[in-house]
Amino acid sequence: MTALTLEDARKGLASQPFSVLLKARVAAFGNGAATLELDIREDLLQQNGYLHGGVLAYAADNAITFAAGTRLGPAILTSGFSIDYLRPAKGIRLVAEARVLHSGRRQATCRCDLLVLGDDGTTTLSAAAQGSVLTRNGPTS
Amino acid sequence: MTALTLEDARKGLASQPFSVLLKARVAAFGNGAATLELDIREDLLQQNGYLHGGVLAYAADNAITFAAGTRLGPAILTSGFSIDYLRPAKGIRLVAEARVLHSGRRQATCRCDLLVLGDDGTTTLSAAAQGSVLTRNGPTS
Amino acid sequence: MTALTLEDARKGLASQPFSVLLKARVAAFGNGAATLELDIREDLLQQNGYLHGGVLAYAADNAITFAAGTRLGPAILTSGFSIDYLRPAKGIRLVAEARVLHSGRRQATCRCDLLVLGDDGTTTLSAAAQGSVLTRNGPTS
Amino acid sequence: MTALTLEDARKGLASQPFSVLLKARVAAFGNGAATLELDIREDLLQQNGYLHGGVLAYAADNAITFAAGTRLGPAILTSGFSIDYLRPAKGIRLVAEARVLHSGRRQATCRCDLLVLGDDGTTTLSAAAQGSVLTRNGPTS
Repeated sequence: MTALTLEDARKGLASQPFSVLLKARVAAFGNGAATLELDIREDLLQQNGYLHGGVLAYAADNAITFAAGTRLGPAILTSGFSIDYLRPAKGIRLVAEARVLHSGRRQATCRCDLLVLGDDGTTTLSAAAQGSVLTRNGPTS
Repeated sequence: MTALTLEDARKGLASQPFSVLLKARVAAFGNGAATLELDIREDLLQQNGYLHGGVLAYAADNAITFAAGTRLGPAILTSGFSIDYLRPAKGIRLVAEARVLHSGRRQATCRCDLLVLGDDGTTTLSAAAQGSVLTRNGPTS
Repeated sequence: MTALTLEDARKGLASQPFSVLLKARVAAFGNGAATLELDIREDLLQQNGYLHGGVLAYAADNAITFAAGTRLGPAILTSGFSIDYLRPAKGIRLVAEARVLHSGRRQATCRCDLLVLGDDGTTTLSAAAQGSVLTRNGPTS
Repeated sequence: MTALTLEDARKGLASQPFSVLLKARVAAFGNGAATLELDIREDLLQQNGYLHGGVLAYAADNAITFAAGTRLGPAILTSGFSIDYLRPAKGIRLVAEARVLHSGRRQATCRCDLLVLGDDGTTTLSAAAQGSVLTRNGPTS
């Protein structure tokens, strides 16, 4: 397998209509890590003006998948993940930083930090996630 | 606390811009259970034409929160959840059924089944989740 | 693959020194489900006289693995699981009931209820878990 | 609340019969982090000669609880955790290093690395966990 490049990752994200809807971007990709970002805008919020937990969960899921893709290649399926919400997410940008803890032939396990960039330039850890990704070899897992 | 009604839950969901963006609906609410639904449409998909895992994660998060709300009332925060993806989600509607396993004074723990309704009328379990919700009493958790 | 029997499962459990230390038993096994039990005794407790959370976690892990084994056979590895503790566990017996939600060629995902049998004959749901198990095909995952 | 000391933590662990059974030790405690250790011995293994996953889960649960205790004090209950197994655990000692990611008035969320020390002096990351701990204020959670 030839390693995927940042450009490959950006094309991959652009081929996901839901990621396009959320205007997510690949900010970094390679060597067992991936960073996705999206600007926090009105229609991604919940009822109290914070970023909706579902957006944080989307970003965790996808950043974990992309980080795993740096090791396993493009034919992968996220097996599952868990997320803990730490602080209400308020700011201008969500930054999801995922890194591979271990990868084998069939599976990679990743952690992800969900950071929020405030309008004062500070970043806050808003949620933490951990999950596993499997290669997609054969008709179904 | 007066118990929340289905109408309250629908108003609550309508006050979440992200849920409005995804066009989620409250299909059932009460007695320790809540069902959210949304129609599967093009802009919620991933690159292979399946519903994006992030949409499943959103639905799990929110259905768990609403189910907990039937016991804990409206002033709550989702603490976290885990989700396992079982099968690629393809169909016309996502149905997220959450139920409270246990609720106390401060916390409720829920399970959630993520079902996909196919155009042939069958439903398939696409993902399974479990999570906890805390009351929001005081300045921060 | 020939399906494993209850007797196979009991031999499997007896081959785990840690399960022998905890005196765990296979109470049921087959058709996508497995039940492990152990008697709650003094040296399995925590500081307040309740069953230690680590024993509940052990039972969840192992019951999930055994339930998956009814579908995937004996050459499997538990990928991971999550557990939510619901109520302090006090009683005479821990009963861990796991069932497969979905199994494919390589992976099975299970839920597990951790029940405690009291000396009055009632059972209480003390914790809930969910996890995935992979086949062990090849040198390592 | 006066901060707990390493000696307090060691007394706390010694008051848990299950931790005594497993011969767990507190190796470090304070400032949002805790390390528990135990020697890998025959009766903690599974059928293939590796440390049983249930021992790793016990250590994750307890190290997370102790790390949270450095912030929240002694009256706490672990709410739940998730664990991903990365590599079969073979060696002479299990080292569970947990650290608080965020703590508030009522809750702390922690990550935990489960490391195995080999007889050649190397350490290997065998599993990774993440979980939450609540204060125990009042009759029930």
